[in-house]
Amino acid sequence: MSDAIPPADKGPLYFDDLHVGQRFVGRKHQIDADQIKAFARQFDPQPFHLDEEGGRQSMFGGLVASGWHTGAISMRLMVEAVPIAGGLIGASGEMRWTKPVRPGDTLHVESEIVEIRPSRSRPDRGRVTVRTETRNQAGEIVQILSAQLVVPRRPA
Amino acid sequence: MSDAIPPADKGPLYFDDLHVGQRFVGRKHQIDADQIKAFARQFDPQPFHLDEEGGRQSMFGGLVASGWHTGAISMRLMVEAVPIAGGLIGASGEMRWTKPVRPGDTLHVESEIVEIRPSRSRPDRGRVTVRTETRNQAGEIVQILSAQLVVPRRPA
Repeated sequence: MSDAIPPADKGPLYFDDLHVGQRFVGRKHQIDADQIKAFARQFDPQPFHLDEEGGRQSMFGGLVASGWHTGAISMRLMVEAVPIAGGLIGASGEMRWTKPVRPGDTLHVESEIVEIRPSRSRPDRGRVTVRTETRNQAGEIVQILSAQLVVPRRPA
Repeated sequence: MSDAIPPADKGPLYFDDLHVGQRFVGRKHQIDADQIKAFARQFDPQPFHLDEEGGRQSMFGGLVASGWHTGAISMRLMVEAVPIAGGLIGASGEMRWTKPVRPGDTLHVESEIVEIRPSRSRPDRGRVTVRTETRNQAGEIVQILSAQLVVPRRPA
């Protein structure tokens, strides 16, 4: 994954600029076997993430990416696509992995704001729930992430 | 993080071997600024994860690890500490980040089985919910992960 960070096409967006139904679509990222194995060696050293033979002998029938790898790639694509003021700062998240990610898959994220709540205790910020689908080149959803973000209000 | 994988002290454990309340404690891992920045450049390039100055200007007041980095390290420690047959295969997960992780913090995981359900459709497996607290050197919880795992029954 390249270290180059393309500029967000607009932003930064404050709490006041967001509304339910607002959508953001990220760029594409192709994952390959080397990326899958390198991530696995460092963070998820299980046979079906480490090499093809381990994958063939597993319930996946082949090499698959760690769910944490899919999550981390999705975060990268979200950081580039969702220009929230102050950054994407998550308080919590729910993930579902709906389909394996395999070498050669091309992933992208589609994020949508599904809930907005002002903070009762902190008038300078609010909570925003963003639902992000990570999809492959066939349009199939491989991961659904629902994240609660802390978002600042526009300074007076 | 070293690539060496210490052997699990027992296992593999099948669905039939697990019970609610069963606990697993992992080894310690110290995180440093280089690890935090390297992960951020690849997966979460936000100023408060990339360098000290970006951290000082943020709500965190200093460099902090990406939540996905804390999650990935926790996964590594869980893979080593929780010897489930067939591997740790998550269908879904809920995460809460309760405290920032900073350079020099030493993390470990404490996992507990909190729910066990046989599969209705697949008699050869079940669903097991594992709650994992990631704690720092002061014993403070920095992340809580509740993961639903697919676990095979012991072959007849």
